[in-house]
Amino acid sequence: MSLLVVGSIAFDTIQTESEIRHNLLGGSASYFSFAASLYTPVNLVGVVGKDFPQEFIDHYHNKGVDTQGLQIKEGETFRWWGKYSRDMNHRETIETKLNVFGTFDPIIPESYQSTPYVFLGNGLPSLQSKVLDQMTTPPKFVALDTMNLWIDTQRPALLDVLKRVNALFLNDEEARMLTGHNNLIQAGRKIMELGPEIVIVKKGEHGALVVSGEGLFITPAFPLESFSDPTGAGDSFGGGFMGFVAREDNTSFDTVKKAVLHGTVVASFTCEAFGTSPLENLKYETIEKRMDQFIQLAYVC
Amino acid sequence: MSLLVVGSIAFDTIQTESEIRHNLLGGSASYFSFAASLYTPVNLVGVVGKDFPQEFIDHYHNKGVDTQGLQIKEGETFRWWGKYSRDMNHRETIETKLNVFGTFDPIIPESYQSTPYVFLGNGLPSLQSKVLDQMTTPPKFVALDTMNLWIDTQRPALLDVLKRVNALFLNDEEARMLTGHNNLIQAGRKIMELGPEIVIVKKGEHGALVVSGEGLFITPAFPLESFSDPTGAGDSFGGGFMGFVAREDNTSFDTVKKAVLHGTVVASFTCEAFGTSPLENLKYETIEKRMDQFIQLAYVC
Repeated sequence: MSLLVVGSIAFDTIQTESEIRHNLLGGSASYFSFAASLYTPVNLVGVVGKDFPQEFIDHYHNKGVDTQGLQIKEGETFRWWGKYSRDMNHRETIETKLNVFGTFDPIIPESYQSTPYVFLGNGLPSLQSKVLDQMTTPPKFVALDTMNLWIDTQRPALLDVLKRVNALFLNDEEARMLTGHNNLIQAGRKIMELGPEIVIVKKGEHGALVVSGEGLFITPAFPLESFSDPTGAGDSFGGGFMGFVAREDNTSFDTVKKAVLHGTVVASFTCEAFGTSPLENLKYETIEKRMDQFIQLAYVC
Repeated sequence: MSLLVVGSIAFDTIQTESEIRHNLLGGSASYFSFAASLYTPVNLVGVVGKDFPQEFIDHYHNKGVDTQGLQIKEGETFRWWGKYSRDMNHRETIETKLNVFGTFDPIIPESYQSTPYVFLGNGLPSLQSKVLDQMTTPPKFVALDTMNLWIDTQRPALLDVLKRVNALFLNDEEARMLTGHNNLIQAGRKIMELGPEIVIVKKGEHGALVVSGEGLFITPAFPLESFSDPTGAGDSFGGGFMGFVAREDNTSFDTVKKAVLHGTVVASFTCEAFGTSPLENLKYETIEKRMDQFIQLAYVC
């Protein structure tokens, strides 16, 4: 089944101890789309400026991502510059220029309005609601990603949209911030009271925890021996997860568990090189191989 | 098969945001012994002062721990006072009084000198070597635990004893500190060059990573909804691991993986209440039940 993603598209500058890369294709919707397109057809909604090169649009098309919902506006594309600490465990934002993304008004093309699976990438909660308002057929499954900024400054709007989603993706700090619970299981249960049936806590290099009415599920991250750039790993995780769920057209807890492993494996590829290139060059057979390796590494049965 | 442990025995004061408990039975050898005794007979070598109550010695005996190697010296028992941050993620040492442990000279009773499985609890590396010198029959499997202090101040002696052990237990920070590698897999491989065939990196609430010539293995920690006191969790993990290996009398990689899960589950009980009491009251059937639960929570197959 097809999958709609609404989120940011950016030019990223990524700086590590040893390297700096400018003008990489980035943004939550880019990472998500490339990851999800390995599983299922993706409909993309986002905004870029007139400076966005056709070459980048071709990248989406090459992966079968539908860009009917991509708005090209007068002005410049969202720019983000992040710098990683030497041990890669901390990231500092050097510069954020929202540009056309600052006035983004997500318009869902008619042909997308019945997409059964929906991912609301990290963004203003009121706009996430606006996306759902435009769906003429109620989606089968809606997942939402958010961040500390919205928890802090847009809590009422966030609580509104949370009532309308099936799954929430957030990281461990955000789960604590949203609920006031330090314990992540307790935080997850508290979030379930706010609406989502499934809470997926992303713990970066420490894996993920799923809290749902049908039980808990935990997984470590795929252990990488070489690690270049974690930018977009969370969105790649979301893309692998949602892509798998949409492809299976099933949201049972068993499918959710497998989807978490797929998200984990897809995100591991993202970390192996800068930007979206590892995802763009990825073949499904390579995911399957790493999945077998992961089972080998992490499972005794 | 029986298992020898040499390590510290202490009176602990443990302080959290909401509680303080004084004069708990503590020390690496206590946690280790109670955990391992759930699997196999344990021979304990340690030192206490004249102030050490018979009641505490009875605790060891109740769990079938042999205390022939327990030295009772003129003076006071080792005392340690730790205080946890509100979120339990940081621990500050308020006070350490080594007392009789400061001049500890581990003497291995003749009846222990052929114990096939040996655990050298965290302590001065030269004393860990001295334990091995006294083994008249070469042990089948020796594991060692260490800490940042010895990596920093006793590196040559630590490197000496590492050449003589099969497995090293250490936490993620210590692995980085010992090797200079930030990546834990690379750190593990570097440690293997120093002697141990198996490196077990303890990541606390994030589980454990095993690096060995036969492959890698990762596991999350058992997710706990209520969490009281993580003191001794690492030693309980070691005790569960070594107890299992000694009971199976097998050190194949398959057994090592299962031992890691047993260590993980045993350590989870330690965190549920203060001090060693959760381990002392633990029944093997309860471990088995939680092991089934863990497989359910963490494994898709």
